Order: sequence, then C-alpha cells, then structure tokens
Amino acid sequence: MEVQIAVAKVNKYATSESGDTLEVVERPNGGLSVVLADGQTSGRGAKAISQMVVRKVIGLLAEGVRDGAAARAASDALFTDKQGKVISTLNIASLDLHSGTIVLTRNNPSPMFICRGEQIDQRGEESIPLGASRNVRPLITEIPVEPGLTIVICTDGLIHAGERRGLPMDVEETIHSVLEDQDPSPQTLADSLLAQAVSLDENRPADDISVLVLKVASRTGDNVRRMTVRLPIEGNMRS
Amino acid sequence: MEVQIAVAKVNKYATSESGDTLEVVERPNGGLSVVLADGQTSGRGAKAISQMVVRKVIGLLAEGVRDGAAARAASDALFTDKQGKVISTLNIASLDLHSGTIVLTRNNPSPMFICRGEQIDQRGEESIPLGASRNVRPLITEIPVEPGLTIVICTDGLIHAGERRGLPMDVEETIHSVLEDQDPSPQTLADSLLAQAVSLDENRPADDISVLVLKVASRTGDNVRRMTVRLPIEGNMRS
Repeated sequence: MEVQIAVAKVNKYATSESGDTLEVVERPNGGLSVVLADGQTSGRGAKAISQMVVRKVIGLLAEGVRDGAAARAASDALFTDKQGKVISTLNIASLDLHSGTIVLTRNNPSPMFICRGEQIDQRGEESIPLGASRNVRPLITEIPVEPGLTIVICTDGLIHAGERRGLPMDVEETIHSVLEDQDPSPQTLADSLLAQAVSLDENRPADDISVLVLKVASRTGDNVRRMTVRLPIEGNMRS
Repeated sequence: MEVQIAVAKVNKYATSESGDTLEVVERPNGGLSVVLADGQTSGRGAKAISQMVVRKVIGLLAEGVRDGAAARAASDALFTDKQGKVISTLNIASLDLHSGTIVLTRNNPSPMFICRGEQIDQRGEESIPLGASRNVRPLITEIPVEPGLTIVICTDGLIHAGERRGLPMDVEETIHSVLEDQDPSPQTLADSLLAQAVSLDENRPADDISVLVLKVASRTGDNVRRMTVRLPIEGNMRS
C-alpha cells in the first residue's frame, strides 16, 4: 500500500500571510502526522497563534506523545497564554505504523469527510477549538489503513466559501463529483475543492483556505518516499 | 516566480528505518526551510540522532534564529550529549522571503550542486559534520532567488553509490544528462538521481539515500501553495 497526502492552500484575498499553518512530522515509532491549525482572525496575529499551536503539537508528537494528549497540551498552553480570548482550530491526521491505523484528531467545528470508494461519511459532531476553556477535549477517530480510503480535512474558509454571495459551497457534493472520476489523485481532489471555493468567492477568497487530502492506495510503485512542495512567490519578494 | 522542492528518499537495503531525516518548516518571517540530517551508522540509532538534530534545528528556525546559528547550536547539543563519539551531517536549504535569497547551510562532506540552466557548479569545500568537536562551523552560501536556478543536495548514500562494485556514481554527470531535457521538474531530477544510485547498488542500496532538489521556476500558475507526500508502506505494517 501507499499513503498519499496532498495539500492545497491559499491566503484570504489581499493578505500576504495565511492564518492557517500546516506541517508534517515523522512519528518516532513509524509513520507521520500532518498538523493543521487555523488561528482566530486573519493575517499576522492569526499566523502567530496557529504557528504556536502547530509547533507545540509537533514537538510533542516527535517525542512520542499521543495525538489526543498533544492536542490537550496545546489547548492548555493557548488558554494559559491568552485566558480564553484567542482560540485556534486543530486537526491532526496521523498514519500510525505501530497500530496500523489512521488516527484523526479534531478540535474544529468544520466537519471532516471519510470516504470509502465513492461513499462519503461527513463527520461533523460538535467540536470545540483549542484555547476556548480549561478542559477542551479532542474528538478522536481511528480507522484501519486500507486501500480505497480517502480523508478530507479543511479549514472553515472552504466550508463557508460563497456564503457572502448566498451561494454556499457544498463540500460533500464536490467531493462526490471528483470521486466519480476514475481514481483521482489526492492532489486533484484537493485542487478541485480549493478551485471550487475560490470560484464561489469570485476569485477573492473571503478567508484563508486549506484543504488536506489523505488517500490510501494499493501499492503500485517502488519503495521510494517522495515529497514535493510548490510555493508561489511574488515578483517583489518583500511584499 | 515559484519555488519548487522535491525529495526522494530510500532506506538502506533490508533496514526498516532510514538514518536520514528530512523535514520542512515555515520561517516566521516568510518562506520555508528544508532540513536534512544523516546520523552516523544506520538503522534505529542513526534515526534517533538525525531526528534529534532536525528537531533542534527546526525548533530554532521556527523561533526566528538564523540558519548558521541553528546549525551551531545543534552541533553543540550533539557534542555535549555524545562527547564527540557520534556525528551527524546537516544541510539546510532556506527560501528567505525577507532577504529575497536562498540560504544554503552545509555541515556535510558530500558536495552540493548549484545549477543555472545547464551549467553545474559542484560545491565540495571541506565541511565538518555536527558533533565532531566543540567549534564546528557551517559553510553558508547565499544566492538571490532567480528563475533557472536548481540546487541539488544529498546524503552520502548517493555520492558513494556503486563503489562496492567499483562502478561509482557520477552525480554531476547524471544531473547534466537530466538537465539537458526540456525543463525537467525537480521530482524528475530527484527520482532520476535516486534511480541511478539504486541501480548502481544493484537494487540493494548500500546506505540510506536522500536527494533534495530545489528549483526556482518562472511563475506560471495560480497563488496556491501545494504539497504532496507519498509514503509506501509494507503489507504487514508492523514490520
């Protein structure tokens, strides 16, 4: 088998910095974790918050701390620092080679989507962001790693796209239409979701938008781990 | 413009864990850094060392510490911990949006390659790994970000491929032959280098091999940041 992860990310219109932070870390007992946080408001202040949360979580995961405990620790640290005045969403998607499972940790009112083949399970149970109070619990979902599994996680910029114009995004419907195609790559799915949202926002995203897609594919290729990153930069780089 | 980064990574034959660790971190003042370390020996012990080095460096970069200072700090920490008995190579490739440059930090006897168009500049000045002594200095190279620039960084598994059979890899020649093709993607270049090395090692890599390619392309697409990760996993995941 092969686990494939794709991310597509865009800033709110006319802001130079995204309030969303996403990073990947290797787990000390095998596998990897993708950590996504969306700090309250947008721009520089939100970026500092989401970076702090992601740093904290990644540092703990790298030490072997379990995902749920890392989320609680980050929440406590944020609450202690900001006294509940600033919150941040958090999603962790972990491939845990030790247990043979994918572990999904969520402190984010935005739903996530667990797809098996073309069947989509929207998971939108109530979930409180980090830093809101003293005792924030993450929702944890653990799924065996098996081919055909696709997981979609996003920040609320995707969910709320188009609302300004009264043409809200239907994320589940968009996922469905892409999955109908023959075995789309996770990058195709992430790009399609983002493109649909940006189009509904008339090419001026009303919020930072991040889309993360994790797919388990039947093994086809070699033993090589691969990663690519593409970072557009302005002509005037100091902007 | 767009900065494109690609990584291809394979384990030493018959080892389940690579001694090489590579991670990417966002820089707090804009841009990102890729950090690659190769711990001495192979397998679990080497992995612990390279992970410790990468964690240390990434934590400091995330706080805004400059690349050279982060490398020195990681070296001092490793030396203090292991008394010079264990060393680790380190390469940092940073896109610094604040200065408009690519900053390359090297504590690695293996050379790196700076290519402009088809012209290749092999940089192999003497460079000492981290943890070797009390006062290890990194070599720092700073280059303006401009289209046509391609940088290749690797661990010594690539450089020494084929030596067992007396058919050593010529990295520069392989880069040259790939760059002759029309505008190859960084993933194509990284994959070609890795495939050549694995072939020279008769499909049983004599060491962990990691190849990192950073390319500055003329801007063509949208404003979307993208990342993909592909992680092959064994049928029996606990292996």
